[in-house]
Amino acid sequence: MNVFCVLQMLHKEWANYGACYKYQPMDLIRKYFGEKIGLYFAWLGVYTQLLIPASALGVAVFLYGCLTVDTNVPSQEMCDEHLNFTMCPLCDRVCDYWQLSSICSTARASYLFDNHATVGFAIFMSLWAAVFLEHWKRRQRCLQHSWDLTGMEDDEVRKNELRPAYEDFLLKKQEKKAKKKKKEESLSWTDRLPGYCINISSILLMVGVTFSAVSGVILYRIIVFAVMSMNPDHEAKANVRVTVTTTAVIINLLVVLVLDEIYGAIAAWITEVTLTKKRSSFLLKSMNAFAPVFYVAFFKGRFAGHPGDYVYVFKDFRMEECSPGGCLIEVCIQLGIIMLGKQLIQNNVFEIAIPYVYTHIHTCKVFPVDKDSKREPQRWDLDYNLEPYEGLSPEYMEMVIQYGFVTLFVASFPLAPVFALLNNVIEIRLDAAKFVTEIRRPDAVSAKEIGIWYNILSGISKFAVITNAFVISFTSEFIPRMVYQYLYSETGTMHGYTNHTLAYFNTSNFKPGTAPHDTDFDRQLRICRYKDYRDPPWSPESYQLSKQYWSVLAARLAFVIFFQVSLY
Amino acid sequence: MNVFCVLQMLHKEWANYGACYKYQPMDLIRKYFGEKIGLYFAWLGVYTQLLIPASALGVAVFLYGCLTVDTNVPSQEMCDEHLNFTMCPLCDRVCDYWQLSSICSTARASYLFDNHATVGFAIFMSLWAAVFLEHWKRRQRCLQHSWDLTGMEDDEVRKNELRPAYEDFLLKKQEKKAKKKKKEESLSWTDRLPGYCINISSILLMVGVTFSAVSGVILYRIIVFAVMSMNPDHEAKANVRVTVTTTAVIINLLVVLVLDEIYGAIAAWITEVTLTKKRSSFLLKSMNAFAPVFYVAFFKGRFAGHPGDYVYVFKDFRMEECSPGGCLIEVCIQLGIIMLGKQLIQNNVFEIAIPYVYTHIHTCKVFPVDKDSKREPQRWDLDYNLEPYEGLSPEYMEMVIQYGFVTLFVASFPLAPVFALLNNVIEIRLDAAKFVTEIRRPDAVSAKEIGIWYNILSGISKFAVITNAFVISFTSEFIPRMVYQYLYSETGTMHGYTNHTLAYFNTSNFKPGTAPHDTDFDRQLRICRYKDYRDPPWSPESYQLSKQYWSVLAARLAFVIFFQVSLY
Repeated sequence: MNVFCVLQMLHKEWANYGACYKYQPMDLIRKYFGEKIGLYFAWLGVYTQLLIPASALGVAVFLYGCLTVDTNVPSQEMCDEHLNFTMCPLCDRVCDYWQLSSICSTARASYLFDNHATVGFAIFMSLWAAVFLEHWKRRQRCLQHSWDLTGMEDDEVRKNELRPAYEDFLLKKQEKKAKKKKKEESLSWTDRLPGYCINISSILLMVGVTFSAVSGVILYRIIVFAVMSMNPDHEAKANVRVTVTTTAVIINLLVVLVLDEIYGAIAAWITEVTLTKKRSSFLLKSMNAFAPVFYVAFFKGRFAGHPGDYVYVFKDFRMEECSPGGCLIEVCIQLGIIMLGKQLIQNNVFEIAIPYVYTHIHTCKVFPVDKDSKREPQRWDLDYNLEPYEGLSPEYMEMVIQYGFVTLFVASFPLAPVFALLNNVIEIRLDAAKFVTEIRRPDAVSAKEIGIWYNILSGISKFAVITNAFVISFTSEFIPRMVYQYLYSETGTMHGYTNHTLAYFNTSNFKPGTAPHDTDFDRQLRICRYKDYRDPPWSPESYQLSKQYWSVLAARLAFVIFFQVSLY
Repeated sequence: MNVFCVLQMLHKEWANYGACYKYQPMDLIRKYFGEKIGLYFAWLGVYTQLLIPASALGVAVFLYGCLTVDTNVPSQEMCDEHLNFTMCPLCDRVCDYWQLSSICSTARASYLFDNHATVGFAIFMSLWAAVFLEHWKRRQRCLQHSWDLTGMEDDEVRKNELRPAYEDFLLKKQEKKAKKKKKEESLSWTDRLPGYCINISSILLMVGVTFSAVSGVILYRIIVFAVMSMNPDHEAKANVRVTVTTTAVIINLLVVLVLDEIYGAIAAWITEVTLTKKRSSFLLKSMNAFAPVFYVAFFKGRFAGHPGDYVYVFKDFRMEECSPGGCLIEVCIQLGIIMLGKQLIQNNVFEIAIPYVYTHIHTCKVFPVDKDSKREPQRWDLDYNLEPYEGLSPEYMEMVIQYGFVTLFVASFPLAPVFALLNNVIEIRLDAAKFVTEIRRPDAVSAKEIGIWYNILSGISKFAVITNAFVISFTSEFIPRMVYQYLYSETGTMHGYTNHTLAYFNTSNFKPGTAPHDTDFDRQLRICRYKDYRDPPWSPESYQLSKQYWSVLAARLAFVIFFQVSLY
């Protein structure tokens, strides 16, 4: 079988959206691209295949939420206007008291992602990650066996039947590489020091940039919220929170995308300058992608203080709280938009549009010269105009970060596997088309396994157990609900839960100048409520953390330990 | 070098207490006994060597406790007679109120094993376990390299230069074994079923026996304590607790030793009957050794109830509490006696006395027959009279259980590594002497690594992180002290800690017939104290778990998570 025949078959059987539902022609891919690229596509195939059951269950969990939302007592209670909970204002002076029933829709939306089934799904996904890694190891062994890779060394040059004359070239390249490596290894500690210094200081700098970006968006939210709340128009006021959240998430997404590109470029530059390995890039890119989600899941609203004793930034602006429906729904939105946005934009803009433009410009630049020499553009001219092959790292990195989104926060967003699956079905064919038509044909390099990426995946899977344990116990309302039902509820049901989670505040305890100066409510209003476990004003330890707070905290921590120990 | 020369050198350089301080002659051992036994002694050597730093630090921690005991505020407070804490009686009717200062010595002894340094030592030992496993892997690789074992299969027969004619015999034996294995593998699922049933049911039976033994000792303690407390003699009464604890621990030790032998025999019988592997034996023996310690560390005293609402067994006997000095000192005693007793008795009785007697009896029985035939006893007659070689499993098992004692509860007994070290220095020479002179020369079997035992050790090390986290946070008083100092103490020091940990009980709330009917204290005594975090009688939620209880519980759990996550 000659090379054109193989290429044609790859076009037809693989780099084609019509072939979506078929298995990939692994042996052809290996023949044409070598084992290293073959293993990447095999891995992507296994991952995508295993996403199918996860997606199915994720959708089932979401549907379970949709179907049971009407029978859920806490969200019923929040929507019940007769219960008449008057809540404390959300900002100083200009905000008014408000009725809890006004956020009924958010409460119902929260329940879709925060119910018993989600906890089961998080456990399932932790097991799923273990099964996935195990399954991939087995598949890798099968491939190693059928491709005769056992006992081979990494990056060894093998005879490629489709490129017989190419072997010498590759061997020379390999030798050069080995020489360079040897030279690098011969560098003494003092020779390496400047490199390490540049490396570490630029990584620290970029970590700083990431955190500044996250804090910047937080400040944006706090300040815009405060400013917009001063708007006297009632209609506008009602939408303040939605507007602020939406714009902030979009800014976050843009920051993530832009920094992603910058970090990639800087990491490449560092690698060149300091002769160190390109490990930092993964660390930076994943931190960049996950930092905003981590902030919302674990930190947002935890340092806001309580009525009469709020925490302020820049003296005037109150620290942000979660929306009254709970933090989980915000994590959900944040995660959904960053994950979807990143995939859609990176796939479309960076993987289709930019290469297309690049190739086009390059062709225009190069051909005029050739035209002068009156020579028809030959195959190698055309090939030369293609973008060069830049290694598999960016492809792996994209997928590993996606794997992080799918596993790390699955407890807050059970639809993540579905989005990942949809993306990957397209991604495989997109990558295939890219490798077959849009970039220069890569050297066929052998590899026995996917190497460091396996370790990273395994690390993410272990870390995911911890993050999911914390999301379930600290971000979702699962534990407080359980504690209420089994420890405090007099009837053993959830009735009265909403009342139990709201603390009392005596409006005469507002600090001077912070009480609402214009209110639609009774001017004599004595008591407003806020979401926290604190002792009531009439208790000897008024506004201190209550016994309920500590018992719920103990239950949350016990759940984390139980979850971790049983899944390790 | 011929075989006698090697044997003589082994005698001189290895199986000799005089050679204690020397490295073992690994190459000679391997030459004479084969790789499998060589690896065992190499492993034992590495383990013993690494116990040296652990022991040194353990002794330092203990000495730190001894030196700082006089500056420790909580134990000073417990010994201070002026503070005058009148404690509630320890049993119904017959026991009197008592002064906290009367248990001063126990409080001081507790401090020796329960101070800041112990926490540091537990962290150190978790890291030590990781270093030990890593170090052993490296040593194993070195040995594999120098003994040319890489690429070899397990149990392969190798040419042994000291036994050239023996090779055929070994090969035949190997073939037989392979045939047997093949036959076993060809057994269908239904053929194996009865075997599995016997296996599982006898394991369950023995697990039941272990738990019954532990519960039996608990009942013994409860009942004997109650009965002895009725003794009208004041002198005898004072010593009740000491007597009961001591006798109970000794009974525990005897039970552990006897069950150990029985389990060994039963496991061997099961293996023969059901053709399954001898895995169960390790599980049973370690459970047997650790169950009593686990009970004291994590369960004792947690279900005793509180004054006015005690928990009773058999209607009349109150559930046992820990000694008022805390549970940790009891764990310490339990662990020390079981570990030391097990090692001393098993080493002396089972490894020296019994083989000696066995050989002696055997010689007497066999020789008369030979004497009739007027033949001098030859070398092979003498060798035949030796005990047969029974594999390395018992040796490994003993050491692995010791490793468990050293790592699992090191937070409660920092002297464990010292005892292990002393034992092992002797154990190596004892085992050496046993292999050289007391048993028939084993077949020289090759092995590449120590196999399943490495996995077991690694499992124990991981489990040890969890048990130590729980011992520090739930058994020791480290966390309550920290919480008091940083959350409740008004001066930021430990002064007032003892008062803070004692709850109030109104003596008029005693259930009818449970108040002391004869007391040396004021008959009008209104309030007695007990060790628990509960609301006082004058609070609206009298005798309920207090806010302090929940905050300490939350801190304990948070510490467990922190300890686990940072050491994984």
